[in-house]
Amino acid sequence: MGNLERRDANAVAYLTMNAPERLNALSDEMLAELQSAFDEIARDQSVRTVVLSGEGKAFCAGHDLKQMTQGRQAEDGGKAYFKALFTRCATMMQTIQRMPQPVIAQVHGIATAAGCQLVATCDMAVAADNTRFGVNGVNIGLFCSTPMVALSRNIPRKQAFEMLTTGAFIDAHRACGLGLINRVVPADSLAQSTTELAETVAGKLGAAVKIGKQAFYEQLQKPLDEAYDYTGDVMVQNMLWRDTEEGIAAFLEKRPPEWSDQ
Amino acid sequence: MGNLERRDANAVAYLTMNAPERLNALSDEMLAELQSAFDEIARDQSVRTVVLSGEGKAFCAGHDLKQMTQGRQAEDGGKAYFKALFTRCATMMQTIQRMPQPVIAQVHGIATAAGCQLVATCDMAVAADNTRFGVNGVNIGLFCSTPMVALSRNIPRKQAFEMLTTGAFIDAHRACGLGLINRVVPADSLAQSTTELAETVAGKLGAAVKIGKQAFYEQLQKPLDEAYDYTGDVMVQNMLWRDTEEGIAAFLEKRPPEWSDQ
Amino acid sequence: MGNLERRDANAVAYLTMNAPERLNALSDEMLAELQSAFDEIARDQSVRTVVLSGEGKAFCAGHDLKQMTQGRQAEDGGKAYFKALFTRCATMMQTIQRMPQPVIAQVHGIATAAGCQLVATCDMAVAADNTRFGVNGVNIGLFCSTPMVALSRNIPRKQAFEMLTTGAFIDAHRACGLGLINRVVPADSLAQSTTELAETVAGKLGAAVKIGKQAFYEQLQKPLDEAYDYTGDVMVQNMLWRDTEEGIAAFLEKRPPEWSDQ
Repeated sequence: MGNLERRDANAVAYLTMNAPERLNALSDEMLAELQSAFDEIARDQSVRTVVLSGEGKAFCAGHDLKQMTQGRQAEDGGKAYFKALFTRCATMMQTIQRMPQPVIAQVHGIATAAGCQLVATCDMAVAADNTRFGVNGVNIGLFCSTPMVALSRNIPRKQAFEMLTTGAFIDAHRACGLGLINRVVPADSLAQSTTELAETVAGKLGAAVKIGKQAFYEQLQKPLDEAYDYTGDVMVQNMLWRDTEEGIAAFLEKRPPEWSDQ
Repeated sequence: MGNLERRDANAVAYLTMNAPERLNALSDEMLAELQSAFDEIARDQSVRTVVLSGEGKAFCAGHDLKQMTQGRQAEDGGKAYFKALFTRCATMMQTIQRMPQPVIAQVHGIATAAGCQLVATCDMAVAADNTRFGVNGVNIGLFCSTPMVALSRNIPRKQAFEMLTTGAFIDAHRACGLGLINRVVPADSLAQSTTELAETVAGKLGAAVKIGKQAFYEQLQKPLDEAYDYTGDVMVQNMLWRDTEEGIAAFLEKRPPEWSDQ
Repeated sequence: MGNLERRDANAVAYLTMNAPERLNALSDEMLAELQSAFDEIARDQSVRTVVLSGEGKAFCAGHDLKQMTQGRQAEDGGKAYFKALFTRCATMMQTIQRMPQPVIAQVHGIATAAGCQLVATCDMAVAADNTRFGVNGVNIGLFCSTPMVALSRNIPRKQAFEMLTTGAFIDAHRACGLGLINRVVPADSLAQSTTELAETVAGKLGAAVKIGKQAFYEQLQKPLDEAYDYTGDVMVQNMLWRDTEEGIAAFLEKRPPEWSDQ
């Protein structure tokens, strides 16, 4: 423990990666603590949004190369360890997408390789204007193959291909223009801007945000007609909730809703 | 009848939603009239492009919440009615995409929830510079799950997710930058600009536009090799038309084509 | 022979389409020479990147309409010829994507119809600032159905639809903003800028770029969980290479790597 800190306020869970001396690398320990935290939050009815940030100079610099190198000591040269590592990492990334609450990356400094994947994986991202993003594994001979799964589902393909094969960094404004992040803000207002976004979403009907987040990723992978069949059923379910009935009634009566789920 | 008006000119069908007192909400009646109109136009050889606009202050404000609330009176709390409603709405949206003629949304004021879905669903869209777009159902506890099917196939996913979970509006320039619409024009030239675009497309060989529109959405849902097999066959078919032979001959001879289908 | 020239320098193969009097049209001969060249390079261990450019006023103006018109003389009106032609063209395009080395389009003048498809198909593209792009077959009655397979996988769908149905051209800056190309540069520095990009990629560990390029397109067509399973295995394989072990060790020791594969 000790790689990840959690603080809750106003229905928002703030997770802070706290291994600044390793640039918050996704070590075995960090991955395990992130997995635990997301699993726990997924079951926590009091949390409506999650903010993920990093202590120190970087948001996250990707996998822990020292630890991976130690993994080579095994008899199989590290094969089983690497296989398990990438599986655990992919599971953690997919947990972010599958958990009911939106997760917002609060990014500063650098977000590289699996750290850039983490940004791409979060549902939304706010970045300080001095942040740099890269999938630069190719520079050391390790192509960012798992990070590109998330990256290539966020930005156009030629721009993703360029980042992956040149290892070049892009700045926060470019990242925003490409769709990798939602907002660029001055570094000194990063925490406040991210909190505002998190609290805005936390102020909505929680059940609606949850059913919506799940449906968002589900329908994206379906052909159009199946996507409509599926989301039509989600809409019917949503319409039958008492809180939604109240929300619509309040709107028609031009008064604020009184929700049980808030 | 009376919710939708049709006027034809120069091979363009102009459909105008005319329920300004309800902000052109997609009531049962409006949905039925849109469905009829699109079905009719789909079979109408004289129509080459469709322009869809709205009377009054808004293009379209989404579903008719008053009517939906009345639907709750049924014994099942509205379940069957809602199911049928979302099915009819999804069918209408898919009809726009499946009909042979391109449909252009001419958007002004606001386009919200299913109204924003309508913009995303049309093949192209032109908007007045004062238009605002939102999928803001989350604000009343009803996540825009069906609108997001169309929205998330138009704009990058993080930006779609933000609109859906914050309920925030974006302006026309932002919508254009994200890919939701094709052009932003001053409000007083909206009708003229949209007509110019519609007539430009209507001036092409109608059969080519029709076969092309159908192939566009078909191939998008296929893996690359199947997409090429399919569109290769479409190209062969297209090449064998007399009008296409004439079009190519005219081009090589540097003269205007004389098409039978025009 | 003679439609395509190859020159190699610094591990980059420069392919130049050289039929300027036909605006480098994709004639039977040009297609055959491109296919041969890409097949040959795919097996050539000395080549790490490919640059594809065109001599004369245009990068490439698409299919050879004169030759296609001659194809109509056959008893079947050209049906078998056209079928074979589009199949050969699609095979060539897919070869670009399947070959291990990244292919960069160096674009100037115009890139139209299948010429625009060629740009969209290349892994990356650099264009002179005076380049114009179009899928304008609709103007002669031949909808660009095969070019749209590549185009619609590069740029947002409403913008692709507009280009396809209006036949209108876009300039290089617009193409860059939409994602069709990576960079716009002054015409007189086009060759130099493209060479710099090609040599940057050629300077990486070749095996990593190759495994990464293949994985890039493979994973794009998979659902998220399968994409992660697949790329996780690619990462394990990549980690076990001696050159990658050296690359990581060199990084940790803050020295340049000594790679065998370079």
